[in-house]
Amino acid sequence: MKPTKVIADKVRGYKLKDTVHRYGEIQTILYALGIGTSQDPMNLKELDFTYERAENFKVMPTFGVTIGKMDDVFEGLMSCPGLPEFNPMMLLHGEQKLEIFNPYPKAQTVTLKSEFIDVADKGKGALVSLGSTLIDEKNLPICRNTIRLYIRGIGDFGDKGLTRETYPSIPKTAPEKVSIDSTSQNQAILYRLAGDLNPLHISPDMAALGGFDRPILHGLCFFGYAAKAVLKEFLDYDVGRFKSISARFTSHVFPGETLVTEMWAYPTGVIFQQKTKERGKICSQGYVEFNQAAPKL
Amino acid sequence: MKPTKVIADKVRGYKLKDTVHRYGEIQTILYALGIGTSQDPMNLKELDFTYERAENFKVMPTFGVTIGKMDDVFEGLMSCPGLPEFNPMMLLHGEQKLEIFNPYPKAQTVTLKSEFIDVADKGKGALVSLGSTLIDEKNLPICRNTIRLYIRGIGDFGDKGLTRETYPSIPKTAPEKVSIDSTSQNQAILYRLAGDLNPLHISPDMAALGGFDRPILHGLCFFGYAAKAVLKEFLDYDVGRFKSISARFTSHVFPGETLVTEMWAYPTGVIFQQKTKERGKICSQGYVEFNQAAPKL
Repeated sequence: MKPTKVIADKVRGYKLKDTVHRYGEIQTILYALGIGTSQDPMNLKELDFTYERAENFKVMPTFGVTIGKMDDVFEGLMSCPGLPEFNPMMLLHGEQKLEIFNPYPKAQTVTLKSEFIDVADKGKGALVSLGSTLIDEKNLPICRNTIRLYIRGIGDFGDKGLTRETYPSIPKTAPEKVSIDSTSQNQAILYRLAGDLNPLHISPDMAALGGFDRPILHGLCFFGYAAKAVLKEFLDYDVGRFKSISARFTSHVFPGETLVTEMWAYPTGVIFQQKTKERGKICSQGYVEFNQAAPKL
Repeated sequence: MKPTKVIADKVRGYKLKDTVHRYGEIQTILYALGIGTSQDPMNLKELDFTYERAENFKVMPTFGVTIGKMDDVFEGLMSCPGLPEFNPMMLLHGEQKLEIFNPYPKAQTVTLKSEFIDVADKGKGALVSLGSTLIDEKNLPICRNTIRLYIRGIGDFGDKGLTRETYPSIPKTAPEKVSIDSTSQNQAILYRLAGDLNPLHISPDMAALGGFDRPILHGLCFFGYAAKAVLKEFLDYDVGRFKSISARFTSHVFPGETLVTEMWAYPTGVIFQQKTKERGKICSQGYVEFNQAAPKL
C-alpha cells in the first residue's frame, strides 16, 4: 500500500535489491565512444580507451555511472514504502556524483549495492538521493554513485532533508581551459548502448511525452564529455589522479549540438561549467577532485 | 608440414572448424551504427534498425557478414595442408558475396560452417574462396558468405581455379540514384566493435605495416553503406526483398571520407559503384539482387 505523501523516514535507508552485472572491454570502449572519445583516430592517448590491445589500455573514469539499469531504480522507487505513486515521466535526473576508489578492472563481474540515502521536500517535488556502490569479485569497492532524482508533483511533505551536495561557485574570471566538443546526430543512440537504454533518448514519441520535440542527449553523456575534457586538459589522461566528479544538470542538450566545457583550477581539482555552443544555455555545472600526484621517488 | 607451393586439390573442400556465436539486439544495433544508420535520429525507418523497442525492429541485411572472426579464417588458412606459409600482412579482402535465405532472428545462437571452395593462381598471388554458411538454432540456414581473399606472394602454381564471380558491367549512363554518406573520423573504431577487430583498422602501427599512413576503413564497412543505400533508395527499407549482395573491393577508404554510392537498376536488382568524394577513387563495385515482391492479395 503506497502512502499518499512522502514518508521521509521510510525512504532513508531503504535498500534496493543487489544487482549483478558483467562487463568486458567492448563495453568500456563503447562507452568511451559514447562520450566522444577518439574523434582523432591518431591520438594515441585516446586510443588507450578505445583499442583493447593498446599497451596502456584503460577504462574511462566515468564508466562507473553506466553499471546498473534505470529500470532497477524505477523498481526501487515504486516498491519503496515511503514514496507515493508517481508518473515516471515526472522524474528528472538532477545531480550525479561519482567517487572512484579503485581502478576499474578491464572485465569483471560486479555487484551493485544501492540504498536511498535521503529525501528532501522541494515544494513542487521531492529530491530523492540514491547511493550505489559497485563491488568487485574480491568484494572490494570500485566506485560509488550518488544520484539525486527530482520527482515533480510529490512535494509538500515538510522534511527539508539531511544531506546536500555543496558546489564551489563558478569563478567570475575567464576559464583557464575551454574544450569544444561536437556531438553527432546519433550520439544518444550510440551512448545508450553502453549507457542507459531509456527510450526518452531515442524514441520521438517518448521524447514528446517528456515535452521535447525530439529526443535529448543523456545528462550522463555530457557529464562524461565534461570528465573527459578535464582528464585531457588537466591530467594528461592520467586516470589514477581522477578521484571524483559531481555535477548538477540544469538543462537539456540535443544530439548534434556542440558542447563547450569551461574549466577553472581550484585547490583540489577543477570547477567546470558546460553549455551548448548553438544555444548558449548552461546544461551542467560541477567539479572534479584530483588525487594528489604520487610522489616522485 | 606446409607445402612450398599451393596444392589446389588440398585447398578445395578443406573444412574449417565450426564456430558458435551468440548475438543479441545490442550487437545488431551496434552494427547498424557502424554502417552509418540513424544519422537523422527522426527518420523512423532507420530507427527500426537502431531502437530495439521499435514496433518494426529489424536487422540490417548485411549483418550476416559480421558473424565469425577473422582469426578463425587465419587459423583455417594456416592449418590448410594445401597452402604454403605466408605473411598475414600479405592478405587482402578482395570480394564478398552475401546471400540471405531467411530473416535474421533478433537474438540467436548461430553456428558457422565454413570450407575453402576454390583457389586460383593469379600470377603474383593466390585467390582463395571461402564459403561460410550461418545456421540457426533449428538447423536452418540464415545466410551464406562467399569471401575471396587475395594472398600476395604465393602465386605461380598453375591452376586457374574452377569458380569466378561474374559482375554485370557498370552502365555508361548517369546513375539513377546517388547516395552521399559521410563517415566519421572514428567510424572504423565504431565499426570494428560489431564487425571485425582486426588491428589494421585502429592501430596506427599496424596500418603502417600494411603500407598506410593511418588506419583504413574496413571494406565490409563501406560494403554495408552500399547495401544501406540500395535498401533506402530502391526498397524503402523492406529487408525481405534484399536477396544478395556481391562486391569487389578495389581501393581503400579512410575514416572521415565521404562515400558516394552510384546506383543503376537492372532487371533483377541494382548495380552499384562506390567512390570517395574527397579523392574520387573507386573503392568498390558490385550488385544487389532483389527477391520478387510478394504478390498483393
